Amino acid sequence: MSDEKPDFSGWTCPIPLKNYPTIVMGHGSGGRMMADLIQHLFVPLFENDTLGNLGDSAVLELPGPGRLAFSTDSFVVKPLFFPGGNIGELAVYGTVNDLAMSGARPLFLSAGMILEEGLPMDTLGQVTASMAEACRRAGVTLVTGDTKVVNKGHGDGVYINTAGIGIIPSGVNIGPALARPGDAVIVSGSMGDHGMAIMSVREGLEFEAQITSDTAPLDGLVDAMLAASSHIHCLRDATRGGLAAVLNELAVASKTGIEFEEQAVPVNAPVAAACEMLGLDPFYVANEGKLVAIVPEVDAEAVLAAMQSHPLGQSAARIGEVVDGYAGLVVARTAIGASRVVDLPAGELLPRIC
Amino acid sequence: MSDEKPDFSGWTCPIPLKNYPTIVMGHGSGGRMMADLIQHLFVPLFENDTLGNLGDSAVLELPGPGRLAFSTDSFVVKPLFFPGGNIGELAVYGTVNDLAMSGARPLFLSAGMILEEGLPMDTLGQVTASMAEACRRAGVTLVTGDTKVVNKGHGDGVYINTAGIGIIPSGVNIGPALARPGDAVIVSGSMGDHGMAIMSVREGLEFEAQITSDTAPLDGLVDAMLAASSHIHCLRDATRGGLAAVLNELAVASKTGIEFEEQAVPVNAPVAAACEMLGLDPFYVANEGKLVAIVPEVDAEAVLAAMQSHPLGQSAARIGEVVDGYAGLVVARTAIGASRVVDLPAGELLPRIC
Repeated sequence: MSDEKPDFSGWTCPIPLKNYPTIVMGHGSGGRMMADLIQHLFVPLFENDTLGNLGDSAVLELPGPGRLAFSTDSFVVKPLFFPGGNIGELAVYGTVNDLAMSGARPLFLSAGMILEEGLPMDTLGQVTASMAEACRRAGVTLVTGDTKVVNKGHGDGVYINTAGIGIIPSGVNIGPALARPGDAVIVSGSMGDHGMAIMSVREGLEFEAQITSDTAPLDGLVDAMLAASSHIHCLRDATRGGLAAVLNELAVASKTGIEFEEQAVPVNAPVAAACEMLGLDPFYVANEGKLVAIVPEVDAEAVLAAMQSHPLGQSAARIGEVVDGYAGLVVARTAIGASRVVDLPAGELLPRIC
Repeated sequence: MSDEKPDFSGWTCPIPLKNYPTIVMGHGSGGRMMADLIQHLFVPLFENDTLGNLGDSAVLELPGPGRLAFSTDSFVVKPLFFPGGNIGELAVYGTVNDLAMSGARPLFLSAGMILEEGLPMDTLGQVTASMAEACRRAGVTLVTGDTKVVNKGHGDGVYINTAGIGIIPSGVNIGPALARPGDAVIVSGSMGDHGMAIMSVREGLEFEAQITSDTAPLDGLVDAMLAASSHIHCLRDATRGGLAAVLNELAVASKTGIEFEEQAVPVNAPVAAACEMLGLDPFYVANEGKLVAIVPEVDAEAVLAAMQSHPLGQSAARIGEVVDGYAGLVVARTAIGASRVVDLPAGELLPRIC
């Protein structure tokens, strides 16, 4: 994905922001400095009339009828920049993906920025430019926002909240409770890339090959899947807690059991090696551009083929099925034919992953 | 407003949260501890089916056609609890009010919680209970949320982002650019209460009388105003930067001048005394339950009367008018008949007010 990254090399801090090389408390206080930040940094980068109007709310016209999807996510990832991405695109794709997981076409985003006093203006510029580029790639419009500044030492550079609105096409009905025994379980690609990319930079680990985050907008992939079948039962992006958390949530919500083959789950070789070295299970490691789909058996091949034809689903694989037994539990079949219960992780594997 | 506060005295931390008297990193990591927090604290307090479904997005049916209002705000107020309120109700009312300022009926909220490791579970419970009570009072439903935990020292107990969706009735067209020369400028009540309430606790100041925040949901007041006139031009809640910031934003957006009488602006005596003691101008001090309205002259008396009949507008007053001259400027006429330009504040008066 590195060829699709925005180019920051030409980014220069606009006047009058130049007068402040770092964020100061006054940038969050509703006065001229905050107005400068909004007018000279945020509005030009996200160029759209709704944001430019600067009302207390964005006023939106929805394109036709349909149910609304509404989602929010805060991002506190550490470090702000990591191999394959940064907090800005993560914040856009995270909410875009949450909307896409309900089958919605993501349309509008809000952004709430919590800036730490002392944040270099240049860093904020890069993060914001990256958000703007991510919005363009995902086809969403950032229409409203808010900026707060907290004292030095009471943040971590920048925390970003995004909320998003999308329209769910009529006929689409996707939800975590809808998995049925006999359904196929499909993942859209390799597991664990994002979490291990963060870990590699944060812990200063040197792996044999650089691991890059998979952060990406999944709405296009979901479009392709819905074109192949309008009967997809569940979609979930496998973020915090990884594949294991998602499968457990779906099993509990739908009161079914889920079985999968460990060997069928795609894991990139450098991630597998790094996990083995650190004693981690890649099924518990976070992703930021991968989804889990639960699909009626009759449509499974068509959905899988549609995924594999999409750039973000080339390594999609069928990994298991929904079963009648042990409602609420997830069971992995190992390479040697044994079975083990894959539980929800208790607490942190790696905090501040997104 | 103190008689409408939720009663925390009976609030007890539910099992299994009791096992963790404070927030730990694991509460933000997508595993069982986070699930416990959501299932045993958040979902019961905000009881509604949409939130309880725990999908990645809330799926909403809108009640009939109309334009959508969409807004977001993050809250980083310090301290978390202050005379007259706390960060929880502030976070609900802040976004409710932003929606109301576009003439929208607020319907749905999202909440993004950024918790600091070590936050007492009891504090989180009180803040959340207060948010739930505020939702009931404002008539909005909190339908989706997100929880992140940051390391001790990298937050301030809890930061809250809310985003909200409302429906704008047909025929209502309110926006900051719509002020016209000849329009009346009305405020809904006394200025500066919230900011001085925060300052009194944060700076440990003892004023003659306790000053309490005016935090309140303004959607009901706006309903009453719209019933009196469907031609209101501008509405704005006077939060950060106070009355001065709002009037400046409206003057700039509408390319008009705004004149007001200093003596006509209601300021409670304890706030006026505290401001004088500290050398502050109450017109720059934040409010959390007051709005500024710009209304065609022909409807001004009817709107003012409607406001004065509402519990949150009893002290509403007409303070000035929109004028033809000096576009983009705000001018105050003083008690002795002089005029002065009231500029946008440069930076902070009092940071972290909301």
